[in-house]
Amino acid sequence: MYRTHTCGELRLANAGQEVTLSGWVQRVRDKGALIWIDLRDRYGITQLFLQDGVSDPKLIEQARSFGREYVLQAKGTVVERESKNPNMPTGEIEIKVSEFNLLNASKVPPFTIEDESDGGDDLRMKYRYLDLRRNPVRRNLELRHNMAILVRNYLSNLNFLEIETPFLIKSTPEGARDFVVPSRMNPGEFYALPQSPQQYKQLLMVAGFDRYFQIVRCFRDEDLRADRQPEFTQIDCEMSFVEQEDVLNTFEGLAKHLFKEIKGIEFDKFPRMTWHDAMKYYGSDKPDIRFGMKFVELNDVAKGKGFGLFDGAELVVGINAEGCAEYTRKQLDQLTEFVKRPQVGAGGMVYIKYNADGTFKSSVDKFYTADDLKKFADKFGAKPGDLMLILCGPAMKTRKQLNELRLEMGNQLGLRNPQKFAPLWVIDFPLLEWDDETQRYYAMHHPFTAPKPEDEYLLDDPSKWGEIRANAYDIVMNGSEVGGGSIRIHDRVLQNKMFHTLGFTDEQAQEQFGFLMGAFEYGAPPHAGLAFGFDRLCSIFAGADSIRDFIAFPKNNSGRDVMSGSPAPLAKEQLEELEIKLDLKDQKA
Amino acid sequence: MYRTHTCGELRLANAGQEVTLSGWVQRVRDKGALIWIDLRDRYGITQLFLQDGVSDPKLIEQARSFGREYVLQAKGTVVERESKNPNMPTGEIEIKVSEFNLLNASKVPPFTIEDESDGGDDLRMKYRYLDLRRNPVRRNLELRHNMAILVRNYLSNLNFLEIETPFLIKSTPEGARDFVVPSRMNPGEFYALPQSPQQYKQLLMVAGFDRYFQIVRCFRDEDLRADRQPEFTQIDCEMSFVEQEDVLNTFEGLAKHLFKEIKGIEFDKFPRMTWHDAMKYYGSDKPDIRFGMKFVELNDVAKGKGFGLFDGAELVVGINAEGCAEYTRKQLDQLTEFVKRPQVGAGGMVYIKYNADGTFKSSVDKFYTADDLKKFADKFGAKPGDLMLILCGPAMKTRKQLNELRLEMGNQLGLRNPQKFAPLWVIDFPLLEWDDETQRYYAMHHPFTAPKPEDEYLLDDPSKWGEIRANAYDIVMNGSEVGGGSIRIHDRVLQNKMFHTLGFTDEQAQEQFGFLMGAFEYGAPPHAGLAFGFDRLCSIFAGADSIRDFIAFPKNNSGRDVMSGSPAPLAKEQLEELEIKLDLKDQKA
Repeated sequence: MYRTHTCGELRLANAGQEVTLSGWVQRVRDKGALIWIDLRDRYGITQLFLQDGVSDPKLIEQARSFGREYVLQAKGTVVERESKNPNMPTGEIEIKVSEFNLLNASKVPPFTIEDESDGGDDLRMKYRYLDLRRNPVRRNLELRHNMAILVRNYLSNLNFLEIETPFLIKSTPEGARDFVVPSRMNPGEFYALPQSPQQYKQLLMVAGFDRYFQIVRCFRDEDLRADRQPEFTQIDCEMSFVEQEDVLNTFEGLAKHLFKEIKGIEFDKFPRMTWHDAMKYYGSDKPDIRFGMKFVELNDVAKGKGFGLFDGAELVVGINAEGCAEYTRKQLDQLTEFVKRPQVGAGGMVYIKYNADGTFKSSVDKFYTADDLKKFADKFGAKPGDLMLILCGPAMKTRKQLNELRLEMGNQLGLRNPQKFAPLWVIDFPLLEWDDETQRYYAMHHPFTAPKPEDEYLLDDPSKWGEIRANAYDIVMNGSEVGGGSIRIHDRVLQNKMFHTLGFTDEQAQEQFGFLMGAFEYGAPPHAGLAFGFDRLCSIFAGADSIRDFIAFPKNNSGRDVMSGSPAPLAKEQLEELEIKLDLKDQKA
Repeated sequence: MYRTHTCGELRLANAGQEVTLSGWVQRVRDKGALIWIDLRDRYGITQLFLQDGVSDPKLIEQARSFGREYVLQAKGTVVERESKNPNMPTGEIEIKVSEFNLLNASKVPPFTIEDESDGGDDLRMKYRYLDLRRNPVRRNLELRHNMAILVRNYLSNLNFLEIETPFLIKSTPEGARDFVVPSRMNPGEFYALPQSPQQYKQLLMVAGFDRYFQIVRCFRDEDLRADRQPEFTQIDCEMSFVEQEDVLNTFEGLAKHLFKEIKGIEFDKFPRMTWHDAMKYYGSDKPDIRFGMKFVELNDVAKGKGFGLFDGAELVVGINAEGCAEYTRKQLDQLTEFVKRPQVGAGGMVYIKYNADGTFKSSVDKFYTADDLKKFADKFGAKPGDLMLILCGPAMKTRKQLNELRLEMGNQLGLRNPQKFAPLWVIDFPLLEWDDETQRYYAMHHPFTAPKPEDEYLLDDPSKWGEIRANAYDIVMNGSEVGGGSIRIHDRVLQNKMFHTLGFTDEQAQEQFGFLMGAFEYGAPPHAGLAFGFDRLCSIFAGADSIRDFIAFPKNNSGRDVMSGSPAPLAKEQLEELEIKLDLKDQKA
C-alpha cells in the first residue's frame, strides 16, 4: 500500500498514529540539526520532520538527497507541531519520519511549482504537466469537474437525457470552417468534425427524446483569435413542446443552481434586455451590467450649435463617468488615444467635466455655453464631480466604439469586479445579418432559427429582412456571452422559405440539410434549444479572463500543442493508405 | 404552453382535470360512433376519446384526418375509462377531447413504430430518427444515460475528477490505425483523433491529479468487423499511488454499484482467473462463466490406444455436455460441421455418449474399449446421460476451437441467459505477444504496461519474452471483455528497456513517445488504470448482443452513416485550403 492517508487529511486528532504518505517534495528546509520536508499531493501538503541525533542518520542522508518534485513514500508517526501553522489544514501536525522510499527522482523543473510561478507562458505550456501541478491551475480543473457534475445531475433530474452524438459527421459548408477527416474505407470521401451537434439534437427531437443534453466537444477550424481554441466544449441542450419562456426558465434555473452551489450566491430573476436595447444602451449584444454608465443619446442637445463634427454625425452618444471630473489632461489624452486605436477606431472623443464647483470644462467650450453644457449634464443625470465622455459618427459604429470606452472606464474605476456576477438574457436578436463582402444575408444564429411569429410576414419583403426579429436568445454574464439558442423552425415550408432567404437553391439546401429536412416530414415537434460555452462558463465562475487555464491541454494561437508537438507530418504510408497527397502552396511557389 | 402533462403521467386521481397533452399519434381506432387516438411521447401513451353525437363534429372530422406519427396538441378532460387497461400506467383514464391543434403532419413512416418493427436493418438505419422512436431503442439510450450518471457520481464521490483531454492530438503509429485531420493552419501537418486518452491520462498522473476519469469518445480506423464502430466510448480511468489490488477493488466497486442500481443484483466478490487458466480451461481470455463445461485435458487417457489422430496431437481436450447423450446422429453431425467451419477450423470432432444405461457409444469405438471410455468419463466427471465432445491438435489452436464449441453448446442448452450476469477478472496477461508476420513481439496491452516485478528479470533473456507476465487485467462479463487495464511503467529505465524489447530504436521511441517519456523525468508517480468499453457495457446490462442499438447514430460496416450520407466528397475549395489533393488508386489504375 502506497499510503494510508493523503497529504491533506491528517489533523491533531491523528497524533500518535503510524501513517504512510506519498507525494511530491515541495521543498526541503535543512537547518542543520533539523530538516523539514513539505510533501505535496493534490489534497494538500504535510510537513515531514527529521532531527539530527534523533532520526536514523541514514534517513537524514536520504532526506538531504531529495530535490524538488522528487516522488516519495514516507512512513512515520503523526506528532503535534511545536509551532503550528494556522494557514494550513494540516498545520497542527507533522510526521516524524521512520522510513523513506524514493519512488521516483525528478530533474530540476524548468519553473517553480508555486501559486505564482516564475515560468513564462510558453514554458508553462511546453511543460503543461508541471504547470498543472500548481494549485491555481488544478483548482480550475476541479471547478470544471464540479460544474460538469452539477450540470449533469440538475438536467438529469429534469428528465433531460445525455445522448452522445457522432463526431465523424457530414461536412456542412454553412457557417465556420469544418475540420475534416479523410475516410480510408471510402477513398476520396471525408468526414467532418462537428462544429456543434445542432442537426443531431434536432433529429433527437424528431425522434421524440423530448429533452436532450450533452457536454460535448466541438470543433471549428477558424483563424484563432486570442482565447479561441480549435476544440471547445459545449453544454448542448434541446427541448420539445416548449416556447421561449420555457427554455429561458429552464436554463436560468440551471445557471442559478450553479451560482448557488459553486459561489453561494442566490439570484432572483435574471434581467432581460432586447438586442435592440442592448445595442442602444451598451453598444454590445453582451453588455456587462455589473456597472451602469448606460449610453445617453445627445443629438438634440449636441446639434445645431455650430460644432461640425456633431452636426454632421448620425449619432452623438456618451457615457457619464461618475466622480471623474478630476481626471487630468494626461488621463483624458490617454482615453482619446484609447478610442483612436485601430481596434476601437473612433475619430476622437469629446469630454465635459462637471466640476465640483458646478462649472463646466469641456473640449468643445468654443461651441457650447455653460447653459448648453448643463443641458448635456441633465440628459446624463450628471452631478458636479462627474465626467461626460462623448463620441459621434455613424450610429452602429459609434455605439460599438463607445462600448469599448465604457468597458475601459469600468476597468479604470474598478467596476468590473470578477467576483461580482451579473447574468442577463439578451433576447429578440435579428434573424438575419447582412454581409457586405458576399452581398447576402446570413443567419445570425443558424439557418434553423425561427423568426418571431409576428415578424414572419416580413420574409416576403426583402427590403425588410434586416428588421426581422428571431426567437433567439443569449445568456450573458459579466459582458461575456456564455450561451445562446433559439426556437427552431419545425415546419418545412417555413424552413424552405428561410433557405431561399439565405440564397440557397433547392439543390443546395437539399444537399446540405436534406436528411434533416427529410426527417422533418415525419412529424417534427415544436422544439428549441440552447448551448452554453462550457470553457467560458467555467472561467467566469472562477473570475478569470482566459479560458485556456480551464482546459487541461490547450492549444496555442497557431492551433499547436507545443507539449506533444502536434500537429505533425504524417508518414508517407499513412498518406498513401488514405489516398491523398500533399499539395503545398509554398513548394509550388 | 404546449402541455400541462406528459403522455405518461395521468392517473385516476387526475379525473375531472382539464389537461393539455402533446405527442405523436400512435394509432387512430375509428369505430364509427367512437374514436380513440393513442397519443405517444417519450413518457408513455394516453388514450384520447371522441364520441359521435357528443363530441363537436369538427373535432371528429379532424380526428379522422390524423395519420400515424402526426404531432398533435390535444386539450380535454381526464375521465375514468369504462374498460380499463391494467397493462398501461395510464390505463385507467382517457381524455375526452375538447380541442385539437395539429402541430405537424407526417408522411406515412417507412416502417411501423412498434416494439417489434417491420423495418429491416437498412431501412431502420436510414430513418434512424424514426427507429429511435421505438420503445426498445429509446430504452437502450435511457439505460445508457442512467449508467453514465451513475458512473460519474460514483467515481466523483471517490475523488476522481473528470478531466477532458484533447481530440486533436499527435499521431502515434503504434497500435491500430489513427484517423487523421489535416491542419489548415499548419499545411502539410496533421492531427490524429485519439484511439484512447492513454498518454494524456498518464500525463495527468504526472501532473498530480491522483484520480482521473473521463467518459470519452475514441476513434480507430480499422476494417470494421461486425459490431465494431469507428468511434466508440470509453469510461477511461487512471489512479496514482496504487497497486493492482487497489485498482481491481475500485472498479469492481463501480461494477457492483451499477449491477445494484440498474439490475437490482448484489454481488459478493468477483471471481479472478489468471490468463493462463482462462486459456487452459476455457480456451479464451474472456470466458463466459455463466455455465460450467470447463475443459478437461485427456492426453493421458486418449493416447497410446492406436488412434493416430489423438496419438499425434499435442493436446486432446474436451467438454462434457450434461444430459446430452440423446443427441441424434444429425445433431452430432451438425456439431462436427460447426467445428469444421473455417471460422472455427477444427479437423473434426470426437464424441462419447455415456448412455443412460451406463454403456458408451462413441465415434472412436474402434480404438477404445468400454473400460477406456469409462476412464474418459471419469476425467470429465461425467454421469450416465452425458455427452463428451473432444477435439485434438496443437494446444492453443485446439483450445480456441473448443471455446467455440463450448459457447455453441452453451447456446444450444440455453445456458447463456442474457439476464444472468457473471463478471470475472482475468489477470496476469502475458506482457508480449509474438507476431509471425512481422517477426517481432508486440505489447499485448500497450507499451506502457508494467511486467510483474517478479518476471522483470526475464526481459534480459529474449528467449523468455513470451513467458513474461504483465500487471494487466481485464474485466469480463458473460464472455465479453468489458474493460481492461494495467499497472503502468513509471520508471524511464524500465520503459526504455520495454521499447527496445518492442524493437523501437531510441529515435523511434523518442519521436513517438518523447513528450511522455520527458514528462516521466519530472517525478512520475506509480500509477495504473483501466478503461471500460461503455457501448459494450451498456449492451451487456441490457442483455443485448449488439452494441449498435446503444449508440444513437451508429455507422454501418463500411463506416458510413446512411442517414446523413457521411462520409462525402469535399468541395474543391476545401481541399485547396487544406493544401491536400486526392490520390485515388482506382483512378490511376
